[in-house]
Amino acid sequence: MSGALRIAVAGLGTVGAGLLRLIEENGDILALRCGRPITVTAISARDQSRDRGIAIEGYQWFDDPAEMARNAEADIVVELIGGAGGPAKAVCEAAIAAKRSIVTANKALIAHHGAELAIAAENVGVTIGYEAAVAGGIPIIKALREGLAGNRITGLYGILNGTCNFILTTMRQTEREFADVLAEAQQLGYAEVDPGFDVDGVDAAHKLAILASVAFGCRVDFENVYTEGIRRITALDIELAETLGYRIKLLGIACRQGEMIEQRVHPCMVPLGSPVAHVEDVFNAVVVNGDFVGSTVYEGRGAGAGPTASAVMADIVDFARGATTPVFNIPARDLVDRTTVPMDRHVGAYYIRLMVVDRPGVFADIAAILRDEAVSMEQILQRTRSPNEAVPLVMTTHEVGEAAMMRALKKFAALETVVESPYVIRIEKLDD
Amino acid sequence: MSGALRIAVAGLGTVGAGLLRLIEENGDILALRCGRPITVTAISARDQSRDRGIAIEGYQWFDDPAEMARNAEADIVVELIGGAGGPAKAVCEAAIAAKRSIVTANKALIAHHGAELAIAAENVGVTIGYEAAVAGGIPIIKALREGLAGNRITGLYGILNGTCNFILTTMRQTEREFADVLAEAQQLGYAEVDPGFDVDGVDAAHKLAILASVAFGCRVDFENVYTEGIRRITALDIELAETLGYRIKLLGIACRQGEMIEQRVHPCMVPLGSPVAHVEDVFNAVVVNGDFVGSTVYEGRGAGAGPTASAVMADIVDFARGATTPVFNIPARDLVDRTTVPMDRHVGAYYIRLMVVDRPGVFADIAAILRDEAVSMEQILQRTRSPNEAVPLVMTTHEVGEAAMMRALKKFAALETVVESPYVIRIEKLDD
Repeated sequence: MSGALRIAVAGLGTVGAGLLRLIEENGDILALRCGRPITVTAISARDQSRDRGIAIEGYQWFDDPAEMARNAEADIVVELIGGAGGPAKAVCEAAIAAKRSIVTANKALIAHHGAELAIAAENVGVTIGYEAAVAGGIPIIKALREGLAGNRITGLYGILNGTCNFILTTMRQTEREFADVLAEAQQLGYAEVDPGFDVDGVDAAHKLAILASVAFGCRVDFENVYTEGIRRITALDIELAETLGYRIKLLGIACRQGEMIEQRVHPCMVPLGSPVAHVEDVFNAVVVNGDFVGSTVYEGRGAGAGPTASAVMADIVDFARGATTPVFNIPARDLVDRTTVPMDRHVGAYYIRLMVVDRPGVFADIAAILRDEAVSMEQILQRTRSPNEAVPLVMTTHEVGEAAMMRALKKFAALETVVESPYVIRIEKLDD
Repeated sequence: MSGALRIAVAGLGTVGAGLLRLIEENGDILALRCGRPITVTAISARDQSRDRGIAIEGYQWFDDPAEMARNAEADIVVELIGGAGGPAKAVCEAAIAAKRSIVTANKALIAHHGAELAIAAENVGVTIGYEAAVAGGIPIIKALREGLAGNRITGLYGILNGTCNFILTTMRQTEREFADVLAEAQQLGYAEVDPGFDVDGVDAAHKLAILASVAFGCRVDFENVYTEGIRRITALDIELAETLGYRIKLLGIACRQGEMIEQRVHPCMVPLGSPVAHVEDVFNAVVVNGDFVGSTVYEGRGAGAGPTASAVMADIVDFARGATTPVFNIPARDLVDRTTVPMDRHVGAYYIRLMVVDRPGVFADIAAILRDEAVSMEQILQRTRSPNEAVPLVMTTHEVGEAAMMRALKKFAALETVVESPYVIRIEKLDD
């Protein structure tokens, strides 16, 4: 047995406290699995006096986490501060400069600076573990980098944000509207006071960009992920989706298209029989397609102290066992830049919801626009009649190009009888 | 970049040929991911002249796989012969004696001899990879040993045999009987001419015993897995299961009970909302519960050349990267013996199907037996009436001990009006 693996923990929020508890409760079994004990030697957080429900007296305290990364008696620095830049980035840079490996749960940091940090780390022979940055407790980075390492990954998709999935599940189960359920999610602690990061799809886009990099051997390119959130989804959309045989999920989707990649996050209608349709509440799920393995699915809790601490510990255990994998599956200097296919070249089926004034001739105008843009309609659903009032008119289309669809939407919006900005949800068949 | 990783492959059936094709097709990306090329140097199979659709001239040929394991110019020996003993075991023993690591897809071998082979391997500093032995392409061994390494595993269950899952799915979808669908599965190549290994649950029990060892830190104990197959399931059972809100799956279930473990493979009625209910056809799925991560689910193809080659390659990639994990997650010499809870101490709900002669008083006899054994009935379903003929009588129970249930079944069987051996399917709530 080698000596103890010493870790320094920066950030003692929910996840940091969860990690300390995990090490305390499962230290015996960790030592057996790693062949050496894992001990926390140093910690750093904003407020030393805050009660976190754990004893912190036994650890060396640092006010400055970057100083801890440089000077603590530690083999690994665990960064649990969060945020794309600022102190989190400073901690990682300090750790690399001191030739210490990093374990982080920080998706924003990896999405924005992952490639450069990986190059810096690999240049000095250290590594960066970020299992906890994507899909919480699900060991999806490990599955992609190691479990499926024999495969060319052709595509992947998943439910990557538990807050959105909770909101969509609850909207469906209770037939309530978005704003109402968001407020509940905030009360339950599932959504932040400023919920934009989650409900506008940014968090899912961070995770998707990381997955795409690992899967396709390219530099993380978060800026080019097409990102659309769930704020405009209504109870009516959710009800009609079920009628049509679909369920609405916020998906992140990435796939190869020759040398380019698709990267997009938006609400999708997925068939009720697809593996993600039944993933509910705060659970996440990722479906990965490889050329030899075919389709594989990974599901679990996407957030929370326990699941995230579990993922952080998986990276620490790898390090303790001496197992290292290139940060993004291939040496970071070999990562290529891949152009993201622009969204207006997307081809797919659409669900369209218009609020129209219920009067004769409305539908003729709409049908003419669809004809002019060569959009082929599949179904029309009009639930309510209310002469001269605004009523929802819902249609689904066959496969059509996004550009034509967007032109049609613009023309709909210009009609005097269309009283709200038209809304579309992309229908994904997900047949793999 | 270190030198090429050289592998010797024993056994060139479907999986062996698939592995050679994978290395040929994805060699470029494997070299990038491993930092070194992976090359096959030697092969061995029963018949050198058989056409396998792949060129084998470039490799050194051995008639005797054990001799290859001893003498080939190779860093790893890949054992794809199959079978619990015989040549497969001889190859592994020869490889260990020659201080070479092993990668195998052989569940029978690991289930019967895993602990002793692991001790021998670890004594000389080599390792045994067997990702492909359980659940085909799903990286479940990696998830358990590494991805969830921070957790105490409290329990796991799964669909571990694709043949049985295909038969049960097809029986449900086509409303046909077992024998008929088995014949179709045999024609499709999903079932062997002698199907017992699959349909009697033996294959699933091999896999479950391996998973239990990894999860609970104990020596593989295949002999004590309670094992029951799917031959007695009828179209009626499947139809009634759906009526009751369940689906019938052959599950392997293992969990901790204090210092003992449960290990059992048998048909189960699972709630339609459970994560395995929608896993169909030849797909496998495993649900793992950890104390910090909660419930995680892994799903994919359980067999076939591509998925199995993918799993074999995952182990080879780990080796090429220098990443080794104790064979059963902790050093093999530290594995403990855990007693398996005897099946008659199982407590659960049951579905009971009796064939009874439809005449007055039959049910009074049955009800009296249930009362005497303190079995509390939940529902009775009698679909058909046919005076003085045999008709099915189906009941479900509340939770009851297996011992009482078995005594009741014996008493049912002794009734003159019960004309066939009574049949039960255990109902599993699977709430985790």
